[in-house]
Amino acid sequence: MGDRRRFPFRKIVIVGVGLMGGSIGMAVRKKHLAKLVVGVGPEARALKRAVRLKAIDQYEDLRRIRKVVAGADLVILSTPVGELEAVTRKLAPGLSGGTIVTDVGSVKDPLVRRLEGQFSPPGRFVGGHPIAGRERSGVEAASANLFSGALCILTPTPRTGSNAFEAVKRFWELIGATVVSMSPERHDRVLAAVSHLPHVIAYALVNTVLELQSKNGDLLSYSAGGFKDFTRVAASSPEMWRDICLANRKNLVAMIETYERTLDRLKQLMIGGHAGRLRAEFKRAKALKR
Amino acid sequence: MGDRRRFPFRKIVIVGVGLMGGSIGMAVRKKHLAKLVVGVGPEARALKRAVRLKAIDQYEDLRRIRKVVAGADLVILSTPVGELEAVTRKLAPGLSGGTIVTDVGSVKDPLVRRLEGQFSPPGRFVGGHPIAGRERSGVEAASANLFSGALCILTPTPRTGSNAFEAVKRFWELIGATVVSMSPERHDRVLAAVSHLPHVIAYALVNTVLELQSKNGDLLSYSAGGFKDFTRVAASSPEMWRDICLANRKNLVAMIETYERTLDRLKQLMIGGHAGRLRAEFKRAKALKR
Repeated sequence: MGDRRRFPFRKIVIVGVGLMGGSIGMAVRKKHLAKLVVGVGPEARALKRAVRLKAIDQYEDLRRIRKVVAGADLVILSTPVGELEAVTRKLAPGLSGGTIVTDVGSVKDPLVRRLEGQFSPPGRFVGGHPIAGRERSGVEAASANLFSGALCILTPTPRTGSNAFEAVKRFWELIGATVVSMSPERHDRVLAAVSHLPHVIAYALVNTVLELQSKNGDLLSYSAGGFKDFTRVAASSPEMWRDICLANRKNLVAMIETYERTLDRLKQLMIGGHAGRLRAEFKRAKALKR
Repeated sequence: MGDRRRFPFRKIVIVGVGLMGGSIGMAVRKKHLAKLVVGVGPEARALKRAVRLKAIDQYEDLRRIRKVVAGADLVILSTPVGELEAVTRKLAPGLSGGTIVTDVGSVKDPLVRRLEGQFSPPGRFVGGHPIAGRERSGVEAASANLFSGALCILTPTPRTGSNAFEAVKRFWELIGATVVSMSPERHDRVLAAVSHLPHVIAYALVNTVLELQSKNGDLLSYSAGGFKDFTRVAASSPEMWRDICLANRKNLVAMIETYERTLDRLKQLMIGGHAGRLRAEFKRAKALKR
């Protein structure tokens, strides 16, 4: 390979080298998308591990971030959602003229507008969210293939530069993802329905069974397929899901309330013994899978 | 092999040759547990298919059931739960002295007591429930390995004969299942928590997302891991789940109400922005998986 190879990007900085940042770094290195991948984070030990796992070429401490981003083509923010604003404030003044910035946060509104407001010009920032994840977190769980065939949602605003958008789109396509574009507001409604609501429902079920177990004796030894699927969903990072639920609570609470009404309707059909209508509800749900 | 081989059972009759009955038949034949396996059902076409798929040796029409069960060591009832009482009434008068009867119904109370009351002596009946299933139903989805390593719950009552219990226990162990024993009442509480409640919750989620989609435009194209697990659970047979929910509604409705309180608590923590308590709830759920 060597230095004479032409890379699509020269220097990429990944801020936060966990499951997502680590997987991005591994994919970039495996596909030779950048000459240099620098990882930035708060813990030297984790960053050293990321170098050993070939997620990044080199690392720098988070405190030096303003210097590190100088000369980068692309900065990818993959810290927890709750830290994105603080990190952006720190690094923004160090950016070179052409540097493009994107993130991988699971919630986009109003975050994207707050983040882009910190950049000058604001058009260099492109909100992004690759729909991929694993039960385990941290760079140890990262994989170069995490995004192969995955969907990546980009959430441009009227301020987003078209150059920046096209570059970030190309980046994700080179990594193997399919890119779709929608507003930050629509992203949050979509994700509340198909991701955030299912997670909250799974968390609530697992905690319900734990409560029931205290009254009914051992239940978990008998858990079969159905319940096990839920425990897997509910094994995701508590910190990440706390941040997501609070950041997207407006959409999420409204959807929980729609869900509560649906569940109550099923309950009433059981109480009233309405066999036909109960079957119709179950049939409607089953039809989706086909 | 031939006729000189010693089989643990001579004649086994399987009433209802769908996913469960068909899988039992396949396992019995594969493991040479019976000299003759007779399938009984309402549709000749499905029964012919079961013969072709090596689930049964021969078949008889459901209308002839009283004659068919004569001389059987073991009769296994694997019709839908809603049909068990009617089928039992038909076949009971035809049973030979030593014939043992068991079922595979997903709900046991008060069904087991109603069924055993129809047999003379009542002790020949042993309620059973192998915890195994698949998304698809019918004998086409059956497999000789469906019960390998699965749990089978037997639900004896004070009237259950110990010979009958031991024979049915041995039968399931020969098929490869692990047998546990509990009262019909406890079975229904356990299954309501770890199986029936998760299914109702999955059905409610899928129907909620279908409702949300009518207001929010396409959502399903963006569904990732979490939601897909639910659609699989909600793809089970609507008729079977209607019967289960109605038969076990007393336990199930109480548990839905416990669940509703847990979900409402999570919702209130989001509305109030209680980050610490929300994280604690999620952490509790995650701990289960470890």
